[in-house]
Order: sequence, then C-alpha cells, then structure tokens
Amino acid sequence: MSSKLRIIPLGGCGEIGKNMTAIEYDDHILIIDAGIMFPENDMLGIDYIIPDYNYLMDKLDKIEGILFTHGHEDHVGAVGHVMKDIKAPIYATPLTVGLLENKLQRAGLLKSVTINPIQAGDVFQVGIFTVEPFHMAHSIPDCVGFGIGTPAGLIVHSGDYKFDHTPVDGWPPDFAKLAEFAHRGVLCLMADSTNAEREGWTLSESVITAALDDVFSVAEGRVIVASFASLVSRIQQVANAAYKHGRKLAITGRSMRDTVNIARKLGYIDIPDNMLIDISETSKLPANQVTVMATGAQGEPTSVMGRLAHGRHPHLNIQAGDTVILSAHAIPGNEETVTNIINRLLQRGANVLYEDIARVHVSGHASREEMKLLINLVRPKFLIPVHGERRHLVQHAKLAEQMGIPKDNIAIVENGTVIELTSTTMSIGERIPGGHVYVDGSGVGDIGRKVMRDRERLAESGFFMAAVGSNGTGQLLGKPEYITRGLINMDEEWESEITEVVTRVMELHGRKAEKRVSSFIEEAISRYLYNETGKRPMVFVVLK
Amino acid sequence: MSSKLRIIPLGGCGEIGKNMTAIEYDDHILIIDAGIMFPENDMLGIDYIIPDYNYLMDKLDKIEGILFTHGHEDHVGAVGHVMKDIKAPIYATPLTVGLLENKLQRAGLLKSVTINPIQAGDVFQVGIFTVEPFHMAHSIPDCVGFGIGTPAGLIVHSGDYKFDHTPVDGWPPDFAKLAEFAHRGVLCLMADSTNAEREGWTLSESVITAALDDVFSVAEGRVIVASFASLVSRIQQVANAAYKHGRKLAITGRSMRDTVNIARKLGYIDIPDNMLIDISETSKLPANQVTVMATGAQGEPTSVMGRLAHGRHPHLNIQAGDTVILSAHAIPGNEETVTNIINRLLQRGANVLYEDIARVHVSGHASREEMKLLINLVRPKFLIPVHGERRHLVQHAKLAEQMGIPKDNIAIVENGTVIELTSTTMSIGERIPGGHVYVDGSGVGDIGRKVMRDRERLAESGFFMAAVGSNGTGQLLGKPEYITRGLINMDEEWESEITEVVTRVMELHGRKAEKRVSSFIEEAISRYLYNETGKRPMVFVVLK
Repeated sequence: MSSKLRIIPLGGCGEIGKNMTAIEYDDHILIIDAGIMFPENDMLGIDYIIPDYNYLMDKLDKIEGILFTHGHEDHVGAVGHVMKDIKAPIYATPLTVGLLENKLQRAGLLKSVTINPIQAGDVFQVGIFTVEPFHMAHSIPDCVGFGIGTPAGLIVHSGDYKFDHTPVDGWPPDFAKLAEFAHRGVLCLMADSTNAEREGWTLSESVITAALDDVFSVAEGRVIVASFASLVSRIQQVANAAYKHGRKLAITGRSMRDTVNIARKLGYIDIPDNMLIDISETSKLPANQVTVMATGAQGEPTSVMGRLAHGRHPHLNIQAGDTVILSAHAIPGNEETVTNIINRLLQRGANVLYEDIARVHVSGHASREEMKLLINLVRPKFLIPVHGERRHLVQHAKLAEQMGIPKDNIAIVENGTVIELTSTTMSIGERIPGGHVYVDGSGVGDIGRKVMRDRERLAESGFFMAAVGSNGTGQLLGKPEYITRGLINMDEEWESEITEVVTRVMELHGRKAEKRVSSFIEEAISRYLYNETGKRPMVFVVLK
Repeated sequence: MSSKLRIIPLGGCGEIGKNMTAIEYDDHILIIDAGIMFPENDMLGIDYIIPDYNYLMDKLDKIEGILFTHGHEDHVGAVGHVMKDIKAPIYATPLTVGLLENKLQRAGLLKSVTINPIQAGDVFQVGIFTVEPFHMAHSIPDCVGFGIGTPAGLIVHSGDYKFDHTPVDGWPPDFAKLAEFAHRGVLCLMADSTNAEREGWTLSESVITAALDDVFSVAEGRVIVASFASLVSRIQQVANAAYKHGRKLAITGRSMRDTVNIARKLGYIDIPDNMLIDISETSKLPANQVTVMATGAQGEPTSVMGRLAHGRHPHLNIQAGDTVILSAHAIPGNEETVTNIINRLLQRGANVLYEDIARVHVSGHASREEMKLLINLVRPKFLIPVHGERRHLVQHAKLAEQMGIPKDNIAIVENGTVIELTSTTMSIGERIPGGHVYVDGSGVGDIGRKVMRDRERLAESGFFMAAVGSNGTGQLLGKPEYITRGLINMDEEWESEITEVVTRVMELHGRKAEKRVSSFIEEAISRYLYNETGKRPMVFVVLK
C-alpha cells in the first residue's frame, strides 16, 4: 500500500470537524483539539457530548501529539476524557495551557500529562509532522491556526477565526504567515465554515467597546452582563467599561471565575485588584457602582442568569433600574430558553439588552468575505470546509467554487469519514465510527440509543405499572397496586375501571402460565389507556 | 359599580393576547379569535395548547359573539374546542368561514353553530358592540382587523397585519378606514407586536414571486416547496410559478389539501384543474415537469418534509437534482429541527433554499416603521401591544413612547390580566386564570404541572422498579424482579449488586411494617443508583 495522508474529522454533533480531528500518515497520528458539544433538545437527559475517538483506541501508541487551537470549551472541553487514553504530549499557547491545566487537574491527570507551551510563529517537530502555529483573531486571546508539514504536502488548519483588524488584545491575525504558506504551496486548507451563510465581514470585537460604553453611560442601577465563561475578550471589555464608569466588578459562576483567575495570572486579562468584589458584597454598594459578570447567556436554568430570571439567586435580585446585557448569541436549539430568560427579566423590571436590539455581541467567526480572503491568501489545491453543519459546509464549498476551486477539489464529509490525500489527489475513503459519545451524569458512553428512545417515550407518555396478586386460579388476590407517572392524574374512577380490565383478563387467562398472564394484562391495560388518553405509555405488570 | 370596559387577553403560550381575547362591558362579552399554539420544547408529550377560557365558563350566556380576524391556526385552530362551550354566533370573512367550517365539521359541531359571513367594510351590531371589520394584508387572503364601538369608546384591533402595498391578492390594507377611525377618535388600539425588534418595513409578499421565478428558471429536477398548510398566498405564488414554467403541481399533506380545496372552491386560489396531480403521479412525469407543495416547513418528523428528509415517504424520494424550498420562518423553538431537515436534505443531494440564503420567505407581520404608521394613522389615546412575547411588547411600547404616547397610556400585561378602560382612563385590573391548557393525546386539560414535572424527570433519568418478595421475617422470598427504563443499560453485575443492597435493607428492617420497608429499600436503591450513575431516577418498590 502506498503511503497516504488521511484526515479524519472525529467529533461533532451537528457540526462537522469541529471538536476533534486526526491527521494520519502511515503509523503517525497527530490530533487537533478535543472539545465538547452541548446536546440537542431531543437528547433527553444528556449533560454533554464528547468526540467518538474509538478509532484511535488500538492506535494510541502511534499518536505523536495533540495540538490545541484555543481555549474554548468546544475545543478543549474533552481533554479530561481523552487524556485518560492518549499518552502523547499536548502543544498549546500559554492561555490555552492555563485553561487545559485547570481541566486536567479536575480530572486528576495533571501530573501524568506532558504539556509543551508554544507560541504563534514557532516551528517545531511533532514526530514526522512539522507544526507551525500562526496567530488568528477570535473572541479569546492566544488563538492559533496550524500549518502542518506532512510528507504529502502542507496542510493549513484555520482554527476558529475572524479577520479582526482591531481585536480587543490588539493582536491582529498573521496575514503574512498565511501568504508565506501560499508561497510555499498549500496542499489542503481546512477552514472554519460557521458563518458561511453571512454576507460581508464580521464586525470587529471592538465595536462592543462602544456599545458597552453607551450602556454604562446611561445605566442608573446595576449592570449585569451575561456571557460565556471562556469569552475572555468580552470579560476584558466589560471590566474596562466598569473601570471607566467607576464601578466595581463581581464575577460569578465557577467556570467564569476560574477563567478570569487563570487569564489574570497569565497576563491575558487586566483588572485592578481593588476593582474586583465578591458577589455577596454587591448589596453593600450603591447600585450605580456595581457591575456583575455572570454565566448563563444560553438561558440554562441552573446558571446564574437562569437563577436571576427565576428569582432564585442567593445574593442578587433583579429589580427595576437594573440593566441586563446578554452578550452572546443563542446556540442553535437554545433560542427558546434564551427568549424565556429575556421575557422573565423584563417582567422583573430590568432593562434588557440583547443582540437583536443592541450591538452587545458580535460573532467570533469569519463571514463570507473573510472566507474568500482566507482562500485567496492561502491558495490551497484542496479545500476541506470544517466547523459547521452540513448547510454551512455546502455554502462554503459553493463560495470556493465561485472563486475557481474545482468542485472535485473540495471535500464535504460527515464526522468519521476519512479523506485521503496524496500530493496530487484527494479522495473520500472509508467510513469509521466518528461522531459523538453521550456523557450523562457520571457515566460516559453507557447511554445507548435504546435508553434514549425509552426516555423519549417516557417523556411523551410516561409509564403505568400494575402489581397484580395471582395464585394461578384465575382469581385476583387482593386489590392490584398501580403506579403511574407522566401519563395523567389518576383518580378513583380510573383505578376501578382498570381493576375491572385486570379482573376480566385474569378470569380468561389467569389459570395459564404466569408469564403469559402478565403480558395479556399489559396488552389489555395498554388498550384501555390508549382509548382513554390517546397515549401509549410503557405498561408493566408484575405478578405477586 | 360604575360601568367599565374590560379587555382580557385569554390565550397564548409565550405570546400575549395572541390566540383569544375577551372584550367585556357589564354583562356583554365579545370574543376575538380562538387559536391554538404549539408547545415549547420543554412541554414534553404535549400535542398543542388551547387558550384557557375558564373565566368565561360561568358567563357563557353573556357572550354575544365571536369574531375571527383570519384563517391561520393560531387564530382559528381552537374553534372545535371553544364552540363546545360557547353558543354565540361566529362572524368571519368568507375564506375564514370556509376554514372554520372544516374544523367545526371535524369536531361534529357544524350543525350546532351559527356562522355569519361578513365582509371588510361592513358595519354590524353584535349585542351592544358595533363591529366594523376592515381589510388588512397578511399572508392569507380575507384578513381583517376590527373597529369595535363600545359605550366607553372605539377600540381598534389590528389583527395580524403588514402594510403590504402589493399583496398577492392585489388587495392592499384599508388605510382610509384607519384614518377615518382616527377622525372619529380611537380610545384604544390593540396592535400586532410580532416584529417590534425589526427595523424598517417588512418586504411585500410579492418579492417572493420574483425569487420563485429565479428558482424555477434554473431548476432541472423536481421543485418541492414546503410551507404552512394555511399560507394561502404562498400556495398561490408557487402555483403561478409552476404554471409559468410548465410544471404540474401536487399538493401533499392533508391540512394543505383541505386548505387548497376550500380556498379554490371559494375563489381565493386560482389553479387550473389540469395542473393539479396526485403525489403518486409525480413519478410518471419527467422531473422538470413536477412541482410538489408540502407541509412540514417546521421540520416536524411526521410531516411530509420530515418524511422526505428521513427517506420515509411512500411516493417521493429526494434525489440529486431536486430543488427543495423551505418557504417559511422557523417558529421559535423549532430552529434545531429545521436545521436538521436542511442538513439531511443536503446529504441526500438536493439543492436546498431557505430564508437565510435566498428570498423564499418574508414575514407576514409589520416591522417597526409600519407599527409607527399604524399608530399615527389611528392616533389612539391608549395602546395595548399584543401578539408577541413580552420582549416584543416592550419594544412596541418603547417605540410608541418615542412617538409621544405617554408611558401610562400603554398597558403591557400577561395573559389573564384584565385591562380596565373608561372613556378617559386605563388601569390594570384583577388577574384571572388566563394562559393555556395542554391538549395531549385525546385529553384536554387533564395534564397538570405535576404530570409535566414527572415527564421531565423521566426524560432526564428514567425510572427503576423493584418487586421484592417478603414474608415479614427479614428474609428475601425468591429473587427480586427489576424493571428499569431510560436510566442505563442494566447488566448482571448491576442486578446482583442491587440485590445485595435490597438484602441488607431487608435484614435490617424486614421485620417491621411493610410500608416502611419499601420506602427504606427505595431510599437504598436511589442512593446506590446515584453513586453509580450520578442520576436520580424515580425509584419504586412493590412488595410481593
């Protein structure tokens, strides 16, 4: 078999090539990112989802290293899971290292993992791969893409990016490096497709500075800003606005406090010590001296914003005069919970500002004109659109075709599809397990499709259980006991009607083998319940 | 007690004053609309929701009539429920009458209900109320708002509207009538707030004609258009495009076929007989002569589009070359299912066009500039923003304030809040039951909060049931039986560990009263399951 370069998107739920990617050449494997995803609305009871890296399990000794692009959850969140299996060293920029260390410590893995801090602009060897991280702008500092030299040619992976000329940290993307890659010749570009449906150019993060200043200038009460815990740039912007307007700042939500502590220690967030207060101290200050940053911009009921909206926060009560800023975009599937939070906060009398009515959030991802610029800067032979649902990958591919990349040189795949490259060809290879693994409570991966289907049915119609006394004579022993949940409010009329149903079945079949009697009773009760409620709950009968 | 005019928004889920409104003066009640809503994602197992009109139940003899603004589900869908209780006559324009009759027939109520067809421009008396329907443009023909003369003054209700100067049916809104109301003096305007967050002016329905023409001009295979069953204007536009490009048209989905039949019979849709084919005939024609109109633009899995996306439709299989148009906006909460449908159709090789990338849908509701025009045309003393979530009502109110309506003259309320008006004052009155009633299977309203909470818990963690043999001596009789669903895949190791847990509890407590033993066992199993899975399923123990 001749040597081939294989690129495999391993993780994602909806999005493709987002959370984990493997690059394989003969017996050498390089991994990019290990993030988590949040479950869709119909994944009942699931906490989060990790990439399915089962494919790697019998190749663990071939993994040369794992590169991280930046510190957001969808790129680093699964590190505590994957590093239980992968023993290769980690490569990441300092802020990303700080955030990774925090996760590895919580997973009890910090001591067993080798972490190599890297800088944008470095060139280093990971096994047979020559890795060149280059700076990209996003909504967190220290974000990089990677140039990866392989025996088949140079791969460029964009990471999450936007071409922000005025980012919050003042460090624009490394256009020169991208052009230099083009000069050397790029075999394949893997690029962020998130905003492939958005015309134009994504607004700079710095427009938010002005919007926040406007809000802080007129706010009479407290200002409460909700965002993502790891949106480091946004936290800095809010801190700057609070500082300018003479307000103290309380950071609340464990994950956001962790991020701020790490980023401050490493010099990526600048907040004076005397500006930070504990959330419990906010009530002691005049309202116009208080700023709160909180998690929960997605409306999660147990988050700080969720508790504020429902009036269940121990230290804060939303009141008339408060200004609440939702500085985030609703992740697809969360629109309804976010809108509920907005409505509830308004009901409590707050002035609520959000993306649809004020410029308090901008996307961290490139729009169509930036995607075109990336392609023209890098001038790849082949393009693999990644980071997005199929609809975004398709639009990204159409845009590239319009720019002259032949259709056959663009690969749109699903997670778990192998893309095979030589220095002159690209083709779609085998399909391996790829996609996602559910994490549910403390269990990883033990929730299969059957359990999920059962949850759906229980959510739809509940269950009905009857414990029926039988002595094999066809007569009922005592009164059956019934337990039902999630179906309907049972009353005595129902109970006696169901007991009649059970009695009739027992008279007919009660002298036969026990096992069959219970299934006859189950069928009869199911029929009765369907006629009465139009529903098909799970029905169980236990003979006693 | 002096006479007061009372306005009560009675129905809605999320949206306020949308689906049903009562207008009350002394012993005289007038109802506007009786629509249904679709459940939110966390309303597990609920089919749809009807307004809570419990308040009217001891006043049924005081209801003088029920007016309908137009034939969309969220305004007429509950007629089969409410007309079981309300015996007053219905007033509606001819197309709305046609759609209402269809629903009443299905509910077996057609013969017992009096229906009075009305026309925009009519003036008629309903009890003490003088009713003046006026034409408004929306995405269904024959849409009206109402001027309602009451002893306290004139109320104007906008209904669903947009100021479309070039509607599909060529009948623009009646600006003159609105101005005439202003001339007479309007006490109170109730107006649609749906798009209060959208700047500018909503595009005319007629822009879709051009967009469809573009799509049909280049489509090589079949064209399949998904929309709402009752979006009559859109159905006409698709039929026109199909006609122009020499294609036949199959209408699929029962509700859409019903609508088309009714609208054609009444002259509101113009499609030549020989153009219409059955869905089963589409396979006999060349692909470029086929157009299909289908339901399921919201991604409902059992709808035509849902079945097409999953490859489960008996007569149609999506294939490369097909063009699919989603001509609708995702209702809040449906974004995720709609995006899944788009991704799946793309995977099957279709060219998929949707709102984000092509002008194949426009909103049927007024944007901010139109809302301002309505206020300035009608010049009301008081404003009640309706039709929208609280966030939209708040933006509508702010817009009106900017136009000079005093804040105190604008009422933002929840469903079930009574607004009291005299000829000079407006105030917020009592809070009555208002809001919504769940319809679930064949049951109406018997699903309370407890059942919903149980469904949530079952969806999250499932249940665990143990039937334990006991004879009161502290010893287990035989092996316990276990039933669990929605928690985890049980294996033998689990079973034997749980049996150990049960055995220990029986040894300790098995000689005590039976009732307490089962709760001890329940607690012990719950503890064990929580330690093992991090989940808290419902646990039940039956002693046998």
